[in-house]
Amino acid sequence: MNQVQKEAFRLYHYPLSPHCRKLRLVLTEKQIEFALREERYWERRAEFTIVNPSGMVPLLKKGSTFLSDSQAICEYIEAEYPVPVLLPQDAQQAYEARRLVGWFDDKFNREVTSPLVFERLLRRIQGKGPPDASRISSSLKALRTHMKYLHYLLDNRRWLAGERMTLADFAASAHLSCLDYINDVDWDYSSTIKDWYSTLKSRPAFRPLLSDYIPGVMPPHHYSDLDF
Amino acid sequence: MNQVQKEAFRLYHYPLSPHCRKLRLVLTEKQIEFALREERYWERRAEFTIVNPSGMVPLLKKGSTFLSDSQAICEYIEAEYPVPVLLPQDAQQAYEARRLVGWFDDKFNREVTSPLVFERLLRRIQGKGPPDASRISSSLKALRTHMKYLHYLLDNRRWLAGERMTLADFAASAHLSCLDYINDVDWDYSSTIKDWYSTLKSRPAFRPLLSDYIPGVMPPHHYSDLDF
Repeated sequence: MNQVQKEAFRLYHYPLSPHCRKLRLVLTEKQIEFALREERYWERRAEFTIVNPSGMVPLLKKGSTFLSDSQAICEYIEAEYPVPVLLPQDAQQAYEARRLVGWFDDKFNREVTSPLVFERLLRRIQGKGPPDASRISSSLKALRTHMKYLHYLLDNRRWLAGERMTLADFAASAHLSCLDYINDVDWDYSSTIKDWYSTLKSRPAFRPLLSDYIPGVMPPHHYSDLDF
Repeated sequence: MNQVQKEAFRLYHYPLSPHCRKLRLVLTEKQIEFALREERYWERRAEFTIVNPSGMVPLLKKGSTFLSDSQAICEYIEAEYPVPVLLPQDAQQAYEARRLVGWFDDKFNREVTSPLVFERLLRRIQGKGPPDASRISSSLKALRTHMKYLHYLLDNRRWLAGERMTLADFAASAHLSCLDYINDVDWDYSSTIKDWYSTLKSRPAFRPLLSDYIPGVMPPHHYSDLDF
């Protein structure tokens, strides 16, 4: 089945937002063309908040309609552009994919990605003083626990939610890619995780994420290296 | 189409968890029988966390399978028990329902329900000292902003996400019912909101929520009154 391009999309995003990265991966995998516009959402630009009461990124403009909430958008895209399938038809398999999307976008984000990206990077960009070392330390500790769980899942499955690649793989790798930009992922911890991430990183959809650049914050050399 | 009871369900919940209340409403509306088991999730009971690595409620036991993440569960239930429809077939309408579920379960919960329920009730139950008055004050301020948005939506629509009752109505009313238990909802603010909530509150599915009781914390008289 061929994908038909229905309308032009514009994505308001921030480069190190894992929810935006997940959506960029989904759109590209589904061969949906979109324009990117960087949004420093914390500045609460009036034209942005008026069309987006949540004030958060991602915000997807489709024609004259604005869509917010990354998971609601992903479900919408899945229904309207079903190829390739990223949420399995089988209810139990779809449940597992959604559970893991929630795991990363809610729990992992709250315990790991959001505090680390804020403390190491956004705090400086937003002019909010020096990083909170104890918050970094507890987030890194939480990251180790999550890596253990990620290893456990991938050790028993081909992809994160089962035998097929799903939205869960994009959600999880979007988070890891943000953490990799700020050099917080220990790739030596598990070759299983590294191999899985390497496979995702090699997909064409991942390439634009690897050339993201935040002025003044260089990612480590291995960030964009496919043989890291 | 008649609903067929497939297996026995058991729901591990906490009475004033909005995510659990949303799921209780969904299960009851779909005439799925389930047993309730109260879980003081913060005590991290070993038998609970071993089958539920997130450590959170709700946890739904179906046969020998455990399901977590309230939204992933609701999507699963919707697929397996499609009557009555709580997520519209139309992709744009389903998007709007999911966006509003996310609005309440993420944003509203983080800014309002979670801090207020914790400060007014869980803090005491968990033995964590006196309430933080400034946190209560900023959460109540956020609640007023959200009530304005809720009024705006309901003033333009029959139900929260459009012309039909959806999961969004259950998510939103689950949050308001938690806040009403601790007497934080100003029902005089908007007769539109009050009428909408009153309609939901009158549904048989709502009745069990209205007889919830947390030892030592009496809800206000109007909490269970259908003519409040």
